[in-house]
Amino acid sequence: TLPFSLISGPCQLESLEHARMLAGTLSELCAARGIPYVFKASYDKANRSSLSGKRGLGMEAGLDILAAIREEFGCPVLTDVHEPGQCARAAQAVDILQIPAFLCRQTDLLLAAGETGAVINVKKGQFLAPWDVPNIVDKIKSTGNGKILLTERGASFGYNMLVSDMRALPIMAQTGCPVIFDATHSVQLPGGLGSSTGGQREFVPPLARAAVAVGVGGVFIETHEEPARSPSDGPNMVPLAEMGALLDQLKALDDVVKA
Amino acid sequence: TLPFSLISGPCQLESLEHARMLAGTLSELCAARGIPYVFKASYDKANRSSLSGKRGLGMEAGLDILAAIREEFGCPVLTDVHEPGQCARAAQAVDILQIPAFLCRQTDLLLAAGETGAVINVKKGQFLAPWDVPNIVDKIKSTGNGKILLTERGASFGYNMLVSDMRALPIMAQTGCPVIFDATHSVQLPGGLGSSTGGQREFVPPLARAAVAVGVGGVFIETHEEPARSPSDGPNMVPLAEMGALLDQLKALDDVVKA
Amino acid sequence: TLPFSLISGPCQLESLEHARMLAGTLSELCAARGIPYVFKASYDKANRSSLSGKRGLGMEAGLDILAAIREEFGCPVLTDVHEPGQCARAAQAVDILQIPAFLCRQTDLLLAAGETGAVINVKKGQFLAPWDVPNIVDKIKSTGNGKILLTERGASFGYNMLVSDMRALPIMAQTGCPVIFDATHSVQLPGGLGSSTGGQREFVPPLARAAVAVGVGGVFIETHEEPARSPSDGPNMVPLAEMGALLDQLKALDDVVKA
Amino acid sequence: TLPFSLISGPCQLESLEHARMLAGTLSELCAARGIPYVFKASYDKANRSSLSGKRGLGMEAGLDILAAIREEFGCPVLTDVHEPGQCARAAQAVDILQIPAFLCRQTDLLLAAGETGAVINVKKGQFLAPWDVPNIVDKIKSTGNGKILLTERGASFGYNMLVSDMRALPIMAQTGCPVIFDATHSVQLPGGLGSSTGGQREFVPPLARAAVAVGVGGVFIETHEEPARSPSDGPNMVPLAEMGALLDQLKALDDVVKA
Repeated sequence: TLPFSLISGPCQLESLEHARMLAGTLSELCAARGIPYVFKASYDKANRSSLSGKRGLGMEAGLDILAAIREEFGCPVLTDVHEPGQCARAAQAVDILQIPAFLCRQTDLLLAAGETGAVINVKKGQFLAPWDVPNIVDKIKSTGNGKILLTERGASFGYNMLVSDMRALPIMAQTGCPVIFDATHSVQLPGGLGSSTGGQREFVPPLARAAVAVGVGGVFIETHEEPARSPSDGPNMVPLAEMGALLDQLKALDDVVKA
Repeated sequence: TLPFSLISGPCQLESLEHARMLAGTLSELCAARGIPYVFKASYDKANRSSLSGKRGLGMEAGLDILAAIREEFGCPVLTDVHEPGQCARAAQAVDILQIPAFLCRQTDLLLAAGETGAVINVKKGQFLAPWDVPNIVDKIKSTGNGKILLTERGASFGYNMLVSDMRALPIMAQTGCPVIFDATHSVQLPGGLGSSTGGQREFVPPLARAAVAVGVGGVFIETHEEPARSPSDGPNMVPLAEMGALLDQLKALDDVVKA
Repeated sequence: TLPFSLISGPCQLESLEHARMLAGTLSELCAARGIPYVFKASYDKANRSSLSGKRGLGMEAGLDILAAIREEFGCPVLTDVHEPGQCARAAQAVDILQIPAFLCRQTDLLLAAGETGAVINVKKGQFLAPWDVPNIVDKIKSTGNGKILLTERGASFGYNMLVSDMRALPIMAQTGCPVIFDATHSVQLPGGLGSSTGGQREFVPPLARAAVAVGVGGVFIETHEEPARSPSDGPNMVPLAEMGALLDQLKALDDVVKA
Repeated sequence: TLPFSLISGPCQLESLEHARMLAGTLSELCAARGIPYVFKASYDKANRSSLSGKRGLGMEAGLDILAAIREEFGCPVLTDVHEPGQCARAAQAVDILQIPAFLCRQTDLLLAAGETGAVINVKKGQFLAPWDVPNIVDKIKSTGNGKILLTERGASFGYNMLVSDMRALPIMAQTGCPVIFDATHSVQLPGGLGSSTGGQREFVPPLARAAVAVGVGGVFIETHEEPARSPSDGPNMVPLAEMGALLDQLKALDDVVKA
C-alpha cells in the first residue's frame, strides 16, 4: 500500500526543450504533493493508425533526450520499445521499458526487455482479459527479472471504443505487481477519426479518480501545454495547466483508500 | 452536489421481521454517518433466469410490508414495478417506483409510473448507451413528473458478463437527474450459473468506490445478514456486517470529490 | 431438416389495404419458390426509442386486420405481445405469438403466451447468451405448450451496435426448437439516430445468406414497398421489389446446406 | 468474383514429412474440386499465451521446409513474419507473407513486408473495426506493392471470446483486396484454458459456410491428421479426414453465391 505515483510526459518527444519544460513542471507539481514522479515519452510511435501520422524523433535522438532528462531532474524515465533489438540500447538511457499493448504477447520482446534488468511496464492488450496477465508476468520472470508493472489501458468494447473495466485493477494486482491505470489511452476512440485515433479528454479525470479509489500503484497521464498541437494523442491529453488540480484530487482520494 | 445517499435492503422481501431487521440496521448505519437512506425491496422477481427461481411474496403482501417499513422507520421506500397496471397501487405504499433494466424502454410502463407522481428510478438497460437515456427521461417528463433518478447497473460485455463503464455516470448526469450506481447488479454474471445468475461480490466495494470517486447522487447496494441464504442475488450481495466499513469509505471519498 | 420458411411483412400495421398488398405479394413470391410463408405485423410498437415514434393502429384494430389477412391468404399470421393480459385476445386472431427481445425473460408474459396454445416465437434478448435460452424454453413448456420458435436478432456489441453471432444458431437449435434468423433487427443501430434507431439495410442480404448457410428453420425479414416511408424500422428494411431475388438466393443456399 | 481458394496446412511446422503429407493430401482434395490451394505453416509461434507453449522449428529450418513444399507441390506457400528483419529472408522461400493480427498496425513490419514484393496477407486485429483496414492497405501500398489479402479472424467480444462479424467481409472488400475468412482462429477462446488458448472446433464448418455464403475470396482453415496432437491450435482445428466433405459444401455454396 504505497502512495500512488505519477507517470507523465508528452506522448512523443518533440525536442529537448519541450521535454525539459514538461519534466520540470511535472516534477515540481509532484514534489509539492509528495507524489513520486516518472517522466514518460516515446522516441517512436511505431503503430500509428495512418502512415501520415508523425512517428517522432527516432531512437538515438530520442534516447539522448531521455538520458538528459534523467540526469537533470533525477526522476526515473520510461519509454516504450517495439522490437527485441531495441531493448538493450534503450535500457542504457531509461529506467523503465514499456511494452506496448498490441505487443504484450510477443514473447521475444518480453524476454529481451526482461533481460536488460530494467523495470518492465507491460500494457495489457485491448484484447486480453485481466486474469490472463500472469502468463505475461511469467515470461518476464523467466529472465530473472521480477521488477514488473502492469498497466490497464482499456479493453475493446465493440468497434472504435474501449471500456475501462475497474475490476481489472484488483485482478491484476493479485500477481503481486504494482498496477498502473493509464487514463490517457483508456479514453482513446481507436480509429474514431478515420485516419487517426480520437479521444475523450473529458473522461480522463473521472476515470483517474475511479482507478485511484479502487486502489492503484500509480496513474499514467499524458499531458501537453497545448494538446491541440501535440503530434499524437492530443484529443485525449490533459492540458498541463489542469494537472495540479487533478493531482490534488487524486492524492486526497488515495489517502482515503490507503488509510 | 448533494452528499450521496444509500439505497439498500434485501433483494426480495422475505418477511416483515426480516425487512424490519435490515431497515433498522441500515437506518442506524446511515444516520451515524449522515447519509440519507432509502429502503429497497422487491415484492416480485418477474424475470428470474429460471422458472424455479423464487419470485417473492406477491404484490399485496409485499406492499403491506413496504408501507409498514416506511411508517416505522420514516425512510423513503423503493420497489420495482413490472406492468403498467401495478404502478398506481404500488405508489400508494412506496415513495420511489423503480423501472427494471429490461423494461426501461417500455413506453406504457414509463408513462404509468410517471403519472403516479412518485419519484421514478430508471435502471439503464444492459443494452443501452448512456447517451440514449434522455429519450427515457423525456417519456417520463411527458407526464408532468420530473422526479427522476437514473441508475447505472452495467452494460453487456460479451456473453454472461457485464462491465461498468464509469463514463456513463457523468454522461447520464447531463440530463440533470441524480445518478445512482447499482454496485450489486453491476457485478452479476447473467446466466453464469446455468439456471441462475452468478455474481462477483468481491467487486462490489471497489466498483462502489470508483463510482463515488467519479461522482454520483447515491449508491444502490443489496445486502443480507447471510447472503448465501438470500432467495435471489446472493452471490453479489454484501454481507450486512460489512456495510458499515464500506459506508465509511464511500462517505470519505464522497467528501473529497464534492469538496 | 425442413426447407426454410419466410416470416415477413411490414414492421407495423398501416392499414388493411397495405397489409393485403404485402401479404399478397409475399405469398406469391413464396409460393413460386416452394417456401412456406408467415405474415408478420405489429399492432403496437411498445418500446420505441422516443415518445414521438409512431406506435401503430392499436390492439383491436390491428387484430382485426391480422385476422382478415389470415382469412384471405390462408397463411399463418404472427404478431408480438407486450403484456400477459394481451395474449389470450391476440391468440384469437393470429397463429404465432411473438415475445419481444427485451421481454424474453418476463416470466408472466412467457407463461400467459404459452397457455394460449399458440406457437410462441421468442426473440433472444440482445443481452442473452445463446446457451441461456433453454431456461426460456422451459418456462413456456411448463404450460404444456412445446410449439416454440427461437429467433436470433443480434447481441449487444459495444454501444449502439449489434453483432450477429452465427454460432448462436446451432447452439439454440440444440433445444430442438426451430431457429429463425431475424435479418432485419440484427442490422439495427439501436439509438444510432439520437431519437430513433438507425439501420444498415445493405447487410440484410449477406447476413441472411450467412444464416441460411449455417442452417436455420427460417428467416425473418421486414419489407416495405417504400422503406423510407415506413413508420418504423425503415432504415433496415429490404425494399419489396428486391425480395424475390433475395429469396431465390436463400432458397438455393438452403438446398445446398440441407442436401 | 473469382471462385474461392483454400489456405490450409498445420498451425506450426512439425517436420518435412508431416508438411509433405498435409500438402499432398490437401493439394489433391483441392485439385479434385477445382479449388486453388495455398499451403500455410508457421516457422515460429511468436506470441504463445504461455512461455511453455511450443514455438516451432525456427526460421531457417522452417523456411527450408516451406521452400521444399513449394518446389514439390507447385502450390503457393504462406507463412507469417514477426519482425521487419525477417521479411526479406522469408520472401525468398514463400509467396505470401502474413502479418499476424496483433501486429497489423506495426508500420515498420508492414513496410518491410510490402517492400519484398510478395503477396501480403494482413490479419485484421481483434481490436480493429473493419472500416479501419484502409489505413493498413495504404501503408503497404506506399511501398508500391498492391498485392494484398485481408483476413477476418474475429473481433474481441468481452473476455476470452471472439465473435465473427460477417458484415466485416463486404466492408473490407470495399478496399478492392480479396478477403479471406479465417475459420480456425475465429473460433479461438483466447486464454480460455488458463495457460493456453481454447477453441470451438465444432463451429469451424458453420462459420466457414456463413462466410462463403456472404462472399469471400477464400477460406483459411488449419488442419491436422490428429488435432489433439497438434503443438498449437489443436482445439480449433478440423481433422484432416473431414476436410473433403467440408470443401464440397463450401464449393457448392460459393457456386450459388457467385452464380
